Amino acid sequence: MSLTVVGSIAFDSVRTPFGERERMLGGSAVHFALAASFFTDVHVVGPVGDDFGEKHTEMLESRGIDTSAIERVEGGQTFFWRGHYGHDLNVAHTDDTQLGVFADFQPKLNDAAAQADVLFLGNIQPDLQRQVRAQCGSARFAALDSMNLWIDTARDSLVAAIGEVDCVILNDAEIRMLTGEPNLARAAKAVMAMGPRIVVAKQGEYGAALFTEDGFFGLPGIPLEDVRDPTGAGDSFAGGFLGYLDGHGSELTTAELRRAMAYGTVVASFNVERFGTERVRELTAAEIEERFRELLAITRFEERPIELRA
Amino acid sequence: MSLTVVGSIAFDSVRTPFGERERMLGGSAVHFALAASFFTDVHVVGPVGDDFGEKHTEMLESRGIDTSAIERVEGGQTFFWRGHYGHDLNVAHTDDTQLGVFADFQPKLNDAAAQADVLFLGNIQPDLQRQVRAQCGSARFAALDSMNLWIDTARDSLVAAIGEVDCVILNDAEIRMLTGEPNLARAAKAVMAMGPRIVVAKQGEYGAALFTEDGFFGLPGIPLEDVRDPTGAGDSFAGGFLGYLDGHGSELTTAELRRAMAYGTVVASFNVERFGTERVRELTAAEIEERFRELLAITRFEERPIELRA
Repeated sequence: MSLTVVGSIAFDSVRTPFGERERMLGGSAVHFALAASFFTDVHVVGPVGDDFGEKHTEMLESRGIDTSAIERVEGGQTFFWRGHYGHDLNVAHTDDTQLGVFADFQPKLNDAAAQADVLFLGNIQPDLQRQVRAQCGSARFAALDSMNLWIDTARDSLVAAIGEVDCVILNDAEIRMLTGEPNLARAAKAVMAMGPRIVVAKQGEYGAALFTEDGFFGLPGIPLEDVRDPTGAGDSFAGGFLGYLDGHGSELTTAELRRAMAYGTVVASFNVERFGTERVRELTAAEIEERFRELLAITRFEERPIELRA
Repeated sequence: MSLTVVGSIAFDSVRTPFGERERMLGGSAVHFALAASFFTDVHVVGPVGDDFGEKHTEMLESRGIDTSAIERVEGGQTFFWRGHYGHDLNVAHTDDTQLGVFADFQPKLNDAAAQADVLFLGNIQPDLQRQVRAQCGSARFAALDSMNLWIDTARDSLVAAIGEVDCVILNDAEIRMLTGEPNLARAAKAVMAMGPRIVVAKQGEYGAALFTEDGFFGLPGIPLEDVRDPTGAGDSFAGGFLGYLDGHGSELTTAELRRAMAYGTVVASFNVERFGTERVRELTAAEIEERFRELLAITRFEERPIELRA
């Protein structure tokens, strides 16, 4: 029982209407790993530069995350992203991107990372995703995220990568863009036709939707009055989702997949309440359990027999 | 137990990527009334011209709808809307609007309509909504819809109208626009501060959200592979919601409000499957019951105790 994530390890400088932060530790692999660490053993794969220090390693290790597969590039600089959000927190505006050590990243998994049961290919170039998938051949379940950039510039590679995973976790707009199909239910089917048997559509504040051969499951977002920084919400969702499946739901039944969707939603809802990893890295088990029950409560309704006028 | 709706009775010419229709009977009052007619007695209030014929009356009456408060203006023309949708069916593009008899509409409720228990003020000029509210003083529950046009051009009147109802049913973007508050949970509270104790945010294909003093309830949309024409979906939702509350949920408990949300979602999901009223006017009780159970099934998940790593 262990989970490997490959993705970006980054420093993020973020401004939103609710404040700003300089050079916070972030990136898809970091947000994912913190979220998943509540559920299972996590190995992080990704490159960092000299600016990635002891305190960053310690923060991850304090959550039990294995950092031994993080690749330190001497003389290099860690991936850097500067961005801002306006009042529509669904739209990120990129102000600066410095690839740094990511420009020449060639993933090499150590044994612990390569032997994981579950693999998450965070949003990186799809050919790199395929290299990692090949190195982690014994994983019984692999999932993938991507973005509009790769749909635009590396579609064939992305479709090949999708053909090698069991599950795709994308924003609903990306699922439409990838398939050219505006209807989400049809678009999800088109993704399944590429190989995966599970498609998760992330819908931002509206929640998330699960498509499988057996049917559909929909979850609304949890209403939050304090949303400060949505950066990393999608990766936190994926971390909660796959972390639960690796740690507790390995049979992948409908019931387990639905619970995994709920845990993903719960952890993502915490992620956005503060900047970067500030909230999730201090999260407690009791808080997760409480919000899981809140999500149950706010989605529950019951049937009562009535006579309809036909 | 009866429900009065005031709103537009219209002829709609609609084009979508899936076909087009000329001069279908539509309008907010018509879509609402058809949806509500499965649950309770409905009185329709609104003006029509000479082009509104016997067959239109008969269609409404075949669903048991009382048309005696429809005002026929001799020599007048019924409200006309021409519009189209692109692949994003969430956005209606208006090509032509002819107010016709609606330009000089002064609502006059007959006794049957004025004595209703529940009142729905469809999307018309807010001063007219207030006139109807005053004429229907004995209604124990009143709800209101509106649109960006009135938020822009008649905000004070709209806020006054909102202060006179128990429930507001708006698109989430309209709730944000009305309150100037980008966070939906805060925006819903701001609407409640105007008077209503219930706020329903319609979210198109993403579903709908219910805000009350007691808390929140969220429903995802039902995934549909065949969506042909979204015109009237919001009014069908409101009709199912208020029709259920009038006919079966008059105690307005949390459980009843949630069931009402589900029936609104169900009827709206049928509405969009075909053009105009084509689908809802031929709907059966069995179809509504089946889709209600489907909505229950696709939203249900269960707790299972697990040990989180804190």
